[in-house]
Amino acid sequence: MALIVQKYGGTSVGSPERIKNVAKRVARFKEAGHQLVVVVSAMSGETNRLIALAKEIQSSPDPRELDVLASTGEQVTIALLSMALQELGYKAKSYTGGQVRVHTDNAFTKARIEHIDTERMRADLDNDTILIVAGFQGMDPDGNITTLGRGGSDTSGVALAAALQADECQIYTDVDGVYTTDPRIVPDARRLETITFEEMLELASQGSKILQIRSVEFAGKYKVKLRVLSSFMDDPGAGTLITFEEDSNMEKPVISGIAFNRDEAKITVRGVPDKPGIAYQILGPVADANVDVDMIIQNISHDGTTDFSFTVHRNDFNRAKLILEETLSHIGGASVTGSADVAKVSIVGIGMKSHAGVASTMFRALAEEGINIQIITTSEIKISVGIDEKYMELAVRVLHKAFELDKEPAPLA
Amino acid sequence: MALIVQKYGGTSVGSPERIKNVAKRVARFKEAGHQLVVVVSAMSGETNRLIALAKEIQSSPDPRELDVLASTGEQVTIALLSMALQELGYKAKSYTGGQVRVHTDNAFTKARIEHIDTERMRADLDNDTILIVAGFQGMDPDGNITTLGRGGSDTSGVALAAALQADECQIYTDVDGVYTTDPRIVPDARRLETITFEEMLELASQGSKILQIRSVEFAGKYKVKLRVLSSFMDDPGAGTLITFEEDSNMEKPVISGIAFNRDEAKITVRGVPDKPGIAYQILGPVADANVDVDMIIQNISHDGTTDFSFTVHRNDFNRAKLILEETLSHIGGASVTGSADVAKVSIVGIGMKSHAGVASTMFRALAEEGINIQIITTSEIKISVGIDEKYMELAVRVLHKAFELDKEPAPLA
Repeated sequence: MALIVQKYGGTSVGSPERIKNVAKRVARFKEAGHQLVVVVSAMSGETNRLIALAKEIQSSPDPRELDVLASTGEQVTIALLSMALQELGYKAKSYTGGQVRVHTDNAFTKARIEHIDTERMRADLDNDTILIVAGFQGMDPDGNITTLGRGGSDTSGVALAAALQADECQIYTDVDGVYTTDPRIVPDARRLETITFEEMLELASQGSKILQIRSVEFAGKYKVKLRVLSSFMDDPGAGTLITFEEDSNMEKPVISGIAFNRDEAKITVRGVPDKPGIAYQILGPVADANVDVDMIIQNISHDGTTDFSFTVHRNDFNRAKLILEETLSHIGGASVTGSADVAKVSIVGIGMKSHAGVASTMFRALAEEGINIQIITTSEIKISVGIDEKYMELAVRVLHKAFELDKEPAPLA
Repeated sequence: MALIVQKYGGTSVGSPERIKNVAKRVARFKEAGHQLVVVVSAMSGETNRLIALAKEIQSSPDPRELDVLASTGEQVTIALLSMALQELGYKAKSYTGGQVRVHTDNAFTKARIEHIDTERMRADLDNDTILIVAGFQGMDPDGNITTLGRGGSDTSGVALAAALQADECQIYTDVDGVYTTDPRIVPDARRLETITFEEMLELASQGSKILQIRSVEFAGKYKVKLRVLSSFMDDPGAGTLITFEEDSNMEKPVISGIAFNRDEAKITVRGVPDKPGIAYQILGPVADANVDVDMIIQNISHDGTTDFSFTVHRNDFNRAKLILEETLSHIGGASVTGSADVAKVSIVGIGMKSHAGVASTMFRALAEEGINIQIITTSEIKISVGIDEKYMELAVRVLHKAFELDKEPAPLA
């Protein structure tokens, strides 16, 4: 008997019929003798419907009230899934985030989980009951309803698995695992049977939409065994298991996957004095406006001045550009230019640590297709490049082939 | 400065536009210097939508989960109304039934309020905040979400007014007060400026849909000053104030109002032995099946047998008839007959206590129109008759005229 936490997203519970299917899947695990905690999102479309209602009333809806409103989405799903399991003859009980005691801070619409009480859940589990828990939500120290932000249901699932020391946390989604890259762009993308936590973290942060990054961070912090599976296949197979590097003795492939996103925009401040503190002078006002900066590049100096470039989320492009235009004379720069059509393509792989030449393979592959690299950042297990958005798909395909991601890794023995 | 509890029903908050209108009305009271607690229902149609979802999943939805589901309806409204007030520049804060600490028993879908903590509300009110509270819902001793049953938002409003010792509880609805009878049936029905609590209770229990009966009982028990007003008029006027008999020195009109409902069905057991205990033998099995019996009549005996008639809710007619057919031989009766097309018409008035001849006026008026009375019940301030349903509207009009309800009562001085 294992204790399994399952999380089903909005598409998986998008209609009464789909909720009944989820109930059947949960029942199969119950029949196999497991204890189950099931975390669900709002039915697909519901959160958007609620937010649209709010915006009809208040142009910039109050965050506390937005959480009171949005949290009803998951509350509907937990009741319905609990009913569906009862209809199949199982004991099931729903819990809101507050009822299950998911304690968060009070940062409405983007709260962080601080602690989860498990006593009550344990009593129900020991009583042979399947627990259905509202994802995405919690309760602050004053008893206010909080939400964890978009995609927060993944985090709820992982956090519950961590608190309950569950044997496995299964994230059911509309794909059957983590792929080397998006199969819609590269048809021979391959499902990975395992991926390390560090790689998953980089993929999530570089644009892979499969798992919400905070949930991966949580899994890493609390060493939660995480598995991504499809909720639409009768036999979801093994999905992709997210492992911890130290768990594995196997040689890792150099590159595990390619992530991308087209949400980038690049801003360049030309002709700024090349003196200490200039980066802070440029980025300080941007950070003060709550604009996140992603990639940063500072070219070498010519005649005491330099060009300074960075990328921001495309939604923040106009705001960030305006801020810099306003502070340009104070900085002492010549001009601010920018482009909102930058895409970022990242190769991620734990094997990169021990292999030279990964970067050169990447850059050569792109150069051969005439794709100009505008900006580069690297981490220990990741190289990201900013390129013209129109080349994004091409770049992903070229890199997928260059690193032979379509081929199964050769067996070790 | 007064403390006012306002309650708005589902139609009053049925769209974002209507919610904004409610906010404007609340704001006017705030501007007049009052403290405000606003209780709201789910947006009209929402509760039905949720229950329909539940029924797609579970033929007979689990009551606990049904409450988890249904309570989201009011939770949506409190968030939206709170946003609307903030948009107008007021401090407003929403509370679910659980958050405001409406403690109930654990009778899911029909819970009863046991206690309300007011400490937190007081603190917010003293901080100049308008409180928006979800009607219809509470929390049982184990922290489960409960609902008070259909129409429970009225009860929530009155209970909050009682707990807070509010100066007035205003129930906003789609009519501008309590009328002598339903104006859709009698066009010259007249709005009552006041009505006593006892009369309101009888009208509510006899079929008037304006106030939910439990809310009237609650108002009576805790002496809450209750006012029914329209939420659709710019100036709702004074509506109808529900007073307590001892508050008033005025002579009361004999009859204040006429209620009716067509939900009755009559069952007659013919030829039962006229012996002690026969009523219990007939009604015991019916009560055991949770069928409520309304009017009861037992005719005088002929040759040692008698006919026994009673009315039940029309939905229970077939079930009650079947029960009696099954026990007929045991009872020793001759036959069971019944009719599902009985309507009940009731005249209600506190003045009835001190006036003779009310019943004879009623019976004569009906007789003159050839309306046969099938069954009669009376209380101190009410006479109800069961008649053929097809005469219901006619009976109401005839009685409205016979008791001169279309005329303003003559001033006392």
